[in-house]
Amino acid sequence: MQPVDLTHHISKRFEKDLEELRGNVLAMGGLVESQLTKAIDAVVSGNSELGLRVAHDDYKVNRFEVTIDEACSRIIATRAPAASDLRLIMAIIKTITDLERIGDEAEKIGFLASRLANMDRPSDSYRELKTLGAHVRRMVAAAMDAFARMDVDAALATVREDEYVDEEYEKIQRQCITFMMEDPRTIRRFMDVTWAARSLERIGDHAKNICEYVIYMVRGKDIRHINVDEIDLDEQD
Amino acid sequence: MQPVDLTHHISKRFEKDLEELRGNVLAMGGLVESQLTKAIDAVVSGNSELGLRVAHDDYKVNRFEVTIDEACSRIIATRAPAASDLRLIMAIIKTITDLERIGDEAEKIGFLASRLANMDRPSDSYRELKTLGAHVRRMVAAAMDAFARMDVDAALATVREDEYVDEEYEKIQRQCITFMMEDPRTIRRFMDVTWAARSLERIGDHAKNICEYVIYMVRGKDIRHINVDEIDLDEQD
Repeated sequence: MQPVDLTHHISKRFEKDLEELRGNVLAMGGLVESQLTKAIDAVVSGNSELGLRVAHDDYKVNRFEVTIDEACSRIIATRAPAASDLRLIMAIIKTITDLERIGDEAEKIGFLASRLANMDRPSDSYRELKTLGAHVRRMVAAAMDAFARMDVDAALATVREDEYVDEEYEKIQRQCITFMMEDPRTIRRFMDVTWAARSLERIGDHAKNICEYVIYMVRGKDIRHINVDEIDLDEQD
Repeated sequence: MQPVDLTHHISKRFEKDLEELRGNVLAMGGLVESQLTKAIDAVVSGNSELGLRVAHDDYKVNRFEVTIDEACSRIIATRAPAASDLRLIMAIIKTITDLERIGDEAEKIGFLASRLANMDRPSDSYRELKTLGAHVRRMVAAAMDAFARMDVDAALATVREDEYVDEEYEKIQRQCITFMMEDPRTIRRFMDVTWAARSLERIGDHAKNICEYVIYMVRGKDIRHINVDEIDLDEQD
């Protein structure tokens, strides 16, 4: 056997490992997006059964997290990855934690949907939740897309969208309090609506986190905990 | 220079790096505990200023996270740690994410404390929040203690405490809804109390997560996403 071939062989195997790892993260992201879509649908259409199914299926998301974590440890231990590959793996370890937490929030929304389905329904079918939900779902999709293409500009654009989510969430919360004060018999219902809105707001945060890992992965620059307006990435272009 | 001495030297340096890393994680844990203690005090004593100070100081927690993350990457890249050392580093990467999120929840409680301080105060000074807060704070302390001593039994005991936190949280939420229905003028106030209770409940979850990493670190067994009653660690004793 020739040494050159061996090196080539090892490097090919390593490439394949990393490619499989990235594929698994994207598959996990796809599952989480689907869980979120169903959870929002369950709220909007008052489908209790669908809500409970989302909650039940959360174990699939958790399974992904454990599998990918193990793969990351194995690759670090056996391949001793250098700078940029290591950054990819570190970003993946963090990303799947956020994906798992998005799954948890989708599970909570599923339970809330099931409970809301058995209460009086407003004539607008929770339009605000639907709008906020659609927005947050797009953020998650955009975050995973930025991850897949290692696209810093797309990641940064998605980070900036989180402000809109926070504003929408505050608006829904104020509205719910107004409704509760007007008719205290609706308190239980509108508490559940605020919980669902809160979960969506949290999902926006997680999508933002993932985008920050993408930026770190590509640029080697940690932008967490920095005001988004202070970020100047052009200097590295 | 003799090769033996060099190896010895490198291994000593590595030991020192790991020790420093563990020390930083414990220091971060100490800071987070202190933030939590102050946030609860601010709610209970109606101290708006203290609440805002906690919120302001969250940047210190964030700074720890970034520093420790960088140290982990550097150690992995330069020392290629083997099995058990690598498990320690993986556990640290996960632990500091949870510590940072506990810091975020303390920040939220700080803001809520500041808002609650400017509203009517109940005669019992939010006794339930105080009790739940004290319990959750002990869980965080116990989790960091289990981490410091790599104590699997202590970690497992703390994981089990999370059920009590969930029950207490549900109780507070039910109480708040009752109060709101009895007197709708208190809705705003009791919404803030439920948010604070929710933050405490989330902190309990994060403490539980940290304990699960301790178990993984020591035993090499991933117990996340497993029902606590199904965990049988004795087989490995």
